[in-house]
Amino acid sequence: MDFDALFTNHLDTLKAEGNYRVFADLERRCGNFPRADNHKDGQLRDVTVWCSNDYLGMGQHPAVVTAMVDAVRACGTGAGGTRNIGGTNHHHILLERELADLHGKEAALLFTSGYVSNWAALGTLGARIPGAVILSDEKNHASMIEGIRHSRADKVLWRHNDWRDLDRKLHAVGDRPKIVAFESVYSMDGDVAPIREIVEVCEAHGALSYIDEVHAVGMYGPRGGGVTEREGLAHRIDLIEGTLGKAFGCVGGYITGSAPLVDFVRSFASGFIFTTALPPAVAAAATASIRHLKESSAEREEQQQRVARLRARLDAAGIPHLANGSHIIPVMIGDPVKCKMISDILMNEWGIYVQPINYPTVPKGTERLRITPGPLHSDADIDHLVTALSSLWRQCALAHAVA
Amino acid sequence: MDFDALFTNHLDTLKAEGNYRVFADLERRCGNFPRADNHKDGQLRDVTVWCSNDYLGMGQHPAVVTAMVDAVRACGTGAGGTRNIGGTNHHHILLERELADLHGKEAALLFTSGYVSNWAALGTLGARIPGAVILSDEKNHASMIEGIRHSRADKVLWRHNDWRDLDRKLHAVGDRPKIVAFESVYSMDGDVAPIREIVEVCEAHGALSYIDEVHAVGMYGPRGGGVTEREGLAHRIDLIEGTLGKAFGCVGGYITGSAPLVDFVRSFASGFIFTTALPPAVAAAATASIRHLKESSAEREEQQQRVARLRARLDAAGIPHLANGSHIIPVMIGDPVKCKMISDILMNEWGIYVQPINYPTVPKGTERLRITPGPLHSDADIDHLVTALSSLWRQCALAHAVA
Repeated sequence: MDFDALFTNHLDTLKAEGNYRVFADLERRCGNFPRADNHKDGQLRDVTVWCSNDYLGMGQHPAVVTAMVDAVRACGTGAGGTRNIGGTNHHHILLERELADLHGKEAALLFTSGYVSNWAALGTLGARIPGAVILSDEKNHASMIEGIRHSRADKVLWRHNDWRDLDRKLHAVGDRPKIVAFESVYSMDGDVAPIREIVEVCEAHGALSYIDEVHAVGMYGPRGGGVTEREGLAHRIDLIEGTLGKAFGCVGGYITGSAPLVDFVRSFASGFIFTTALPPAVAAAATASIRHLKESSAEREEQQQRVARLRARLDAAGIPHLANGSHIIPVMIGDPVKCKMISDILMNEWGIYVQPINYPTVPKGTERLRITPGPLHSDADIDHLVTALSSLWRQCALAHAVA
Repeated sequence: MDFDALFTNHLDTLKAEGNYRVFADLERRCGNFPRADNHKDGQLRDVTVWCSNDYLGMGQHPAVVTAMVDAVRACGTGAGGTRNIGGTNHHHILLERELADLHGKEAALLFTSGYVSNWAALGTLGARIPGAVILSDEKNHASMIEGIRHSRADKVLWRHNDWRDLDRKLHAVGDRPKIVAFESVYSMDGDVAPIREIVEVCEAHGALSYIDEVHAVGMYGPRGGGVTEREGLAHRIDLIEGTLGKAFGCVGGYITGSAPLVDFVRSFASGFIFTTALPPAVAAAATASIRHLKESSAEREEQQQRVARLRARLDAAGIPHLANGSHIIPVMIGDPVKCKMISDILMNEWGIYVQPINYPTVPKGTERLRITPGPLHSDADIDHLVTALSSLWRQCALAHAVA
């Protein structure tokens, strides 16, 4: 068996389709976001990052940077063990309290990533609740899909954001334990779920409601508690999952919910039990970030203003982008090769970094640029981006939006 | 459906069995390892940690701490995205080069944890190699078991460390792609695999060899390349998996192997693609730690000397511990309630922290204390530990080793 030949063959297929991924080798400059150095062919190039999930630039916030530096100096670089075996640090405990408070829940549990939190929590709930059925929005993130798959519970897909379809499917399931899994803000289309209606349907059927707020925590609600906070619905949802790696500017994931629910996942989830805890310094930085965004709405407001400005400028230039209720601006291209080419030209000729989004992150034929304006993008940055895109739209004869 | 009642019911069962886990709330003191503050009931207590997986104390090494602090200040607290979408930082690239060099391989790939690296790599290889069969040592770690399970490939268990059994089972599989997964040092018994014999069997059957070296990297071999380096076998193994969270004192996991193999996992593994990258500062710290341990054997030698000293002292005191070829000293108790009680007494009366290891980390009936001496444990620390254990052995009428 020539394994390398098999691997090469699969990779050649990706390349032929235009779906082979090349990572941009960056150094973001703390204190100078959204600017970064791009390493390429031994050269350094100054670029402006337009596709970061550090949505609010909290990764360079002085309070967050200081908290991380101080904790490294106080506690060292790593946790030194799993949470159970020597790896729980007081910074983890403080962060879990902060997260429970953020969502108004009894308890919270940290994971090494948002991916692992979804995978482990859904995997454990689905496997350990006898007879459970998981009803999953058809556009849920890979981490939820894999968690559900791993649980081997019965799965029912419901049409994206369609609470009436969910209602029918819950009814059809009948008298079994039901878990409804969905997101508040969907990463790639940026659309927002009708959370109130979904929650009401869950309540009517006695289903456990599970929401992924990774693209919303820190971003929405008066304290950054996500869309569920903004809509006053957090207390009606059983489990809120979130991340420390996007608006909070760090890394890690978490769940919050009732004390028994969180303790259950803590006690049975393989992906929580058998893994080294996050560095105490990451927990300290995340705690500082969450505390800041509970008190300060300036970053959120500035970000929303930047998003509105870029959308208006794109409209004026006739560059089509998905209308949605969020901060995510998808500019649709619909072809992987073209998408990569545009991204390469933006990087090489304009000093603009927007990664092409191809399969499997989005379905084939819906390739796009996913633009995430932040409070640190200036008017001049926006002008430069729209000028570059307009030039490319002329060059490449791409479709314009109907004015 | 009263979900909370169901969760509480499961938790009550754990409590009744003595398997409910209570995490020690610690603050390790950088510069003063293995000492830590234990937070309990609002009090702070000085303790000596005897169960850390930061085996060499690299989490407080000045070069590692400085590298992490400098990178936080230079690049911020988080990566800001997945590896593909804005999250690759030059520190990741440098670390991957360092890891490939450590194991003499063409390429390396970082993951958010060792757990995820096993889960994602085995999950992807098993699922994507048509007709693959995975032959798994029966004592493999949970992360490997879950990865194999997730792949849905056919699985064959072979008797622990029994290369003859592996040989027979590879023969029985016949003409299909075969992956052999095993570890070098097993976490809970501390025993070491007969790697040479296993590799020869793999070569004879054309199987892809996959070794987990998480408890060995940094610890064995002249440059800390693990048992495979010490035995001169790294070049004969297709995939070496390791962690940055134990001897290297940070967090994260990785695989190394041929360029096509690593690129294949990079391109297809959901658990790699859809997750935020490790903070650049973690990568910088890990790189500094690996570089130091490539040059310096002082930490390894001192650690091995500490292990030998503690073993000799335990023998002299008649306290039974598993003989094995590694740095892990399991003191067997065989009962979860007694194991927890001993651990509590050590903490409360002696200022010694050794977490009780209960099910599901070890099989029921094999509960133990797992002691990991490091270069920073003094002679006095060892004396104090053996005195405490001797006192407990008298108090609790535990079995003594036959002299």
